[in-house]
Amino acid sequence: MTFISAIEARWKQKNSLLCVGLDSDLNKIPAHLRKKDTPLFKFNKAIIDSTADLVCAFKPQIAYYSASGSEGELEMTIEHIHENYPEIPVILDAKRGDIGATAEMYAREAFERYKADAVTVNPYMGSDTLEPFLERREKGIIVLCRTSNPGAKDIQDLSMNGKRLYQIIASMAVGKWNFNNNVLLVVGATYPKELKEIRSIVGDMPFLVPGIGAQGGDVQKTVTNGKDSKGTGMIINSSRGIIYASNGSDFAEAARSAAKRLRDEINQHR
Amino acid sequence: MTFISAIEARWKQKNSLLCVGLDSDLNKIPAHLRKKDTPLFKFNKAIIDSTADLVCAFKPQIAYYSASGSEGELEMTIEHIHENYPEIPVILDAKRGDIGATAEMYAREAFERYKADAVTVNPYMGSDTLEPFLERREKGIIVLCRTSNPGAKDIQDLSMNGKRLYQIIASMAVGKWNFNNNVLLVVGATYPKELKEIRSIVGDMPFLVPGIGAQGGDVQKTVTNGKDSKGTGMIINSSRGIIYASNGSDFAEAARSAAKRLRDEINQHR
Repeated sequence: MTFISAIEARWKQKNSLLCVGLDSDLNKIPAHLRKKDTPLFKFNKAIIDSTADLVCAFKPQIAYYSASGSEGELEMTIEHIHENYPEIPVILDAKRGDIGATAEMYAREAFERYKADAVTVNPYMGSDTLEPFLERREKGIIVLCRTSNPGAKDIQDLSMNGKRLYQIIASMAVGKWNFNNNVLLVVGATYPKELKEIRSIVGDMPFLVPGIGAQGGDVQKTVTNGKDSKGTGMIINSSRGIIYASNGSDFAEAARSAAKRLRDEINQHR
Repeated sequence: MTFISAIEARWKQKNSLLCVGLDSDLNKIPAHLRKKDTPLFKFNKAIIDSTADLVCAFKPQIAYYSASGSEGELEMTIEHIHENYPEIPVILDAKRGDIGATAEMYAREAFERYKADAVTVNPYMGSDTLEPFLERREKGIIVLCRTSNPGAKDIQDLSMNGKRLYQIIASMAVGKWNFNNNVLLVVGATYPKELKEIRSIVGDMPFLVPGIGAQGGDVQKTVTNGKDSKGTGMIINSSRGIIYASNGSDFAEAARSAAKRLRDEINQHR
């Protein structure tokens, strides 16, 4: 099954567009876990087990593991998801991008080493740098388009012949990069107007939508402007708002409550 | 000492603009090394020890290590350089870029975990995503501008109000991002015209120049068009052309010969 089919199945069967982001930081997880072996994995396992039935995907952010040499805990986390919840796809958020021979190595990192089902990639270096990813047809290749951060406008909003760079990226995604029907776009929840514009360019191409929660994105505007013709089309990510809902011993239950609340809020507006 | 001062010292003292890229691939290193423990480290150590007096910097490409879970060998490689050749700066080629909180994790990955002296970064996500790197004033922050690959033109050459994206990035690097005098640009050797244009925009800001050797960049045109007002200003990288000069037991000597030849060819045109 391809990544996109797996996501579509989750949207339908679980009635959820919610993705939980595993941006797990040693300095922010509950104190009682920090004293143990593999604390990030133990934290992730508890979050995963308490939210699995509520999500369409999980998204670990690789920087949180590589900053401290915790790659092994990232591997264990993804393995835990695949073994216990084989129907839930895993997105490795890595935003990779490099010349062909190196991009092939990054594709191996994401798909062979970590066994992710999808990866985020940066289009700045051009089409040939995306090729080693795009040719993996069963995987999801999630291209940065209009990101959720305040500085997103600096480069992505530059205007060329009346078209902004993010609009050009969206057009390339549909017209040039999607030959295997495995491309998705990153579009931030913090810019609902842009979400709507990009939706109008790409038809039903799915979005990974960061920016809800800690970054301030509005759920109603996000869903109204970003949904596809079937009322789905979005993998709406929340990381900090869910995984750090409590920093006490009740963190997993608190994460479940926060995930349920956000899933339901999203569904209200579909 | 800052990264840029260390590079300038090497340019002067060693009369070398050459950087050796440690893109070390298990499938390409000599067969007799593959049977040993830590084969990538043993390969790198031999290359480093045989070329150290000929280079201004070493540049490991992180994807070659992370694809196979060989982060430990990357750590050992950088430690070997720092311990034995403390005057040679190390560039971690990682092309990272993400929202602020995550970018901070990537900065820790490069500078605290791996103890690199400089890192390559991708500007697509905007100024705030570069901040956690730029604020490390002693480090070198090497921003992708005009890359060496065939598809570089797809996005980087897009024209906005008569200016190409790579020209705008070059202007931002000088006018906005270089407040700590620690910014450099990636400009590919395969595009000499663009090298010259970017040099005229940024004055003496140093370049990291990939694309010589396997990628086909011409040494004379690169040096003529890319050098700064002092006849330096470039860290000219070669990876495959040097480290795989031979795949026999003489690989380290062959690498030394190739490095010496390229260093001298570069110097002929300065």
